[in-house]
Amino acid sequence: MKDRVQSNQSESFRRSSRRRFLKSSAVLAGVASACSDSQTVVDPNPGTLGVPASAYGQRSEFETSVRQITPSATPEAGASRTPLDDSFGVVTPSALHFERHHAGVPRIDPTQHRLLIHGMVERPLILTMEEIFRLPQVSRIHFIECSGNSGSEWSNPRPNAQGSHGMVGGSEWTGVPLSLLLSEVGVQNGARWIVGEGADACRMHRSIPMEKAIDDIILAYGQNGEAIRPEQGYPLRLVVPGWEGNTHIKWLRRLMVVDQAYMARDETSKYTDLMPDGTARQFTFTMEAKSVITFPAGGKRLDGPGIYQISGLAWSGRGLVESVEISTDGGRSWLEAQLQEPRHPIALTRFRLPWEWDGQEVTLQSRCIDETGYIQPSREQLIEVRGLNTRYHYNGIMIWKILADGSVENAYA
Amino acid sequence: MKDRVQSNQSESFRRSSRRRFLKSSAVLAGVASACSDSQTVVDPNPGTLGVPASAYGQRSEFETSVRQITPSATPEAGASRTPLDDSFGVVTPSALHFERHHAGVPRIDPTQHRLLIHGMVERPLILTMEEIFRLPQVSRIHFIECSGNSGSEWSNPRPNAQGSHGMVGGSEWTGVPLSLLLSEVGVQNGARWIVGEGADACRMHRSIPMEKAIDDIILAYGQNGEAIRPEQGYPLRLVVPGWEGNTHIKWLRRLMVVDQAYMARDETSKYTDLMPDGTARQFTFTMEAKSVITFPAGGKRLDGPGIYQISGLAWSGRGLVESVEISTDGGRSWLEAQLQEPRHPIALTRFRLPWEWDGQEVTLQSRCIDETGYIQPSREQLIEVRGLNTRYHYNGIMIWKILADGSVENAYA
Repeated sequence: MKDRVQSNQSESFRRSSRRRFLKSSAVLAGVASACSDSQTVVDPNPGTLGVPASAYGQRSEFETSVRQITPSATPEAGASRTPLDDSFGVVTPSALHFERHHAGVPRIDPTQHRLLIHGMVERPLILTMEEIFRLPQVSRIHFIECSGNSGSEWSNPRPNAQGSHGMVGGSEWTGVPLSLLLSEVGVQNGARWIVGEGADACRMHRSIPMEKAIDDIILAYGQNGEAIRPEQGYPLRLVVPGWEGNTHIKWLRRLMVVDQAYMARDETSKYTDLMPDGTARQFTFTMEAKSVITFPAGGKRLDGPGIYQISGLAWSGRGLVESVEISTDGGRSWLEAQLQEPRHPIALTRFRLPWEWDGQEVTLQSRCIDETGYIQPSREQLIEVRGLNTRYHYNGIMIWKILADGSVENAYA
Repeated sequence: MKDRVQSNQSESFRRSSRRRFLKSSAVLAGVASACSDSQTVVDPNPGTLGVPASAYGQRSEFETSVRQITPSATPEAGASRTPLDDSFGVVTPSALHFERHHAGVPRIDPTQHRLLIHGMVERPLILTMEEIFRLPQVSRIHFIECSGNSGSEWSNPRPNAQGSHGMVGGSEWTGVPLSLLLSEVGVQNGARWIVGEGADACRMHRSIPMEKAIDDIILAYGQNGEAIRPEQGYPLRLVVPGWEGNTHIKWLRRLMVVDQAYMARDETSKYTDLMPDGTARQFTFTMEAKSVITFPAGGKRLDGPGIYQISGLAWSGRGLVESVEISTDGGRSWLEAQLQEPRHPIALTRFRLPWEWDGQEVTLQSRCIDETGYIQPSREQLIEVRGLNTRYHYNGIMIWKILADGSVENAYA
């Protein structure tokens, strides 16, 4: 399958480039004859000295991509979305990583910050950041996704990928394995859960089963090579690989070891899924396989028929993305996309596929298959099981519609 | 070997934590009894609403790590160094990635920028950035290293890792495979090299053999998930995996296909290695295996005897880092460090090893072994072959000396 796709890509590109050469040959005629004199090439910047090296860099003034802030009557309880439409590769720039705050971003002096580990433990501990920095460290690339991400697609479809799927981001997280600290404090018999609590004004807290706590949770203080950003939990957050973002407690100040779930506000009145029969799913922690095409996506416009590269992101809370398939014929047939290697488990995975647009109206959709064999469902399949009463854990297939004028829309809008 | 190291780590940590528990039990006595009332824990931020979500994030005001700017009479021809001492994981934050400019950072409007591909080709091309964005895309994590990195260690040892080894950085680069474009323009018989030229005031240019050009070079426009930073070549640079940084032409405006090397200033008067016999090595492109311990490193101070985690970075221009070994006894014996997985070829690779300091003066050194079997040489072995007349391509083992007061120095200083 892969070989065929690659050979298609090469063939498509050859055809595309022939066209481009023909199209641009008039322009090239003048330029090619002047090749020995580079000054005849358009040169907006001839020989001007630039600016010297700097202590801390900024992006180009010509780059304007920003997070989209969700309007909120109480801005401290708000959110912002990653501009996935403008993203490259699998690393989300920290400055553009989505946010979700329940009481704003606290200003924390790391020298004053403490982590308390207590409850059903033999040896409760208070740790300073300096002490935490001395402990054995791991780094892993993982996505974090709000369980409300793409929740708009249940009933209020958004016009672009930032709006529909922008509450996800991928980073290299660095910190201490929680299992190590739990082993040090000595978990008592009968302890079944931990409760993590943040230092924000609302003391955001969530209950996490002990099996996950001793599996792969990281007490993270590093993000993409530097200290974790303030809006991501500076100086310390839980990274709970593959679980809903709300459990990745930011500004972490306390871990309490307990015998049962705490039934916090964010695991009872929120972050539960009301099912068609009136019961509610609770503690639906794992973010299931999902994908979204980020180009061409809603809000973009194709510049006429020709070859384009379909590109997007896929991820699964259960491990590796095994494959991503793309349909350009309404789901009748599927082509396997190329995946960026090496893939990282529980991480954003970039997929790409060359595609020729003939200028007719068409839909594009992608589906993620993860290493467990789970196949991302269609919107219809998802609604059939889960109904329309919930705002969380939507992972239906996203469909973009290309109109004849090249503009792109959410097919469900 | 790995199993033994891991078991050592666990054992070391157990011993360390026992000590810490004993040390802190007096503090814990008061806190543990107050566990049910979290307000009794030091809380510098009690219940204050934080700031709302923002369009483009910044790091915490408490983070002060910056690039170290090399003093220069002509600041536009200057450099800055990555603060490796403060780094986590393997991604270098773009804002802290080292710089080396020969005529400053030009201000380039991407809508005005053009790439000319000409010379010994069948179909010369001028491409806009929009056209380049439409071409098939790849993303890869690679290091870029100035060939002058750690050149100080030939004869003027620096006091810390930023000063000695800070002219290296690791990023996820996204762009178009150069092989694809060369195939499109049709390379003529007899063409053996390409010359890349930048849009900076000095028109920085370098010759690169055709074999490398069609192997793995990327025309990169993305860095760590967003547009490449201005000081890294916005909007377009060559990424020449594993080769000296000077060949990764920034602000790329022109690729000329030629029959022989151009003998540019930066491949004759500079970036050559004067050997002991008076001859000079030229076109020594590949950056050989290297490593540096970033903690504990020069300028840091250990807070008394106890368990610490040795951490550092290793890389090789020839592919994967196969292993990193650490000696704490002057090179008599070597322990294998743990490597951050998955490793990426031609990329920074984080290594870690727990270590107990007994409070005595001691030296720490690391050596990188790459997938070709090449072993990073000692400073003495390197000087024996290459002499002391060059400033480039130093890759000798770095040795840090821990003094009895916990301070750390360059052992060669």
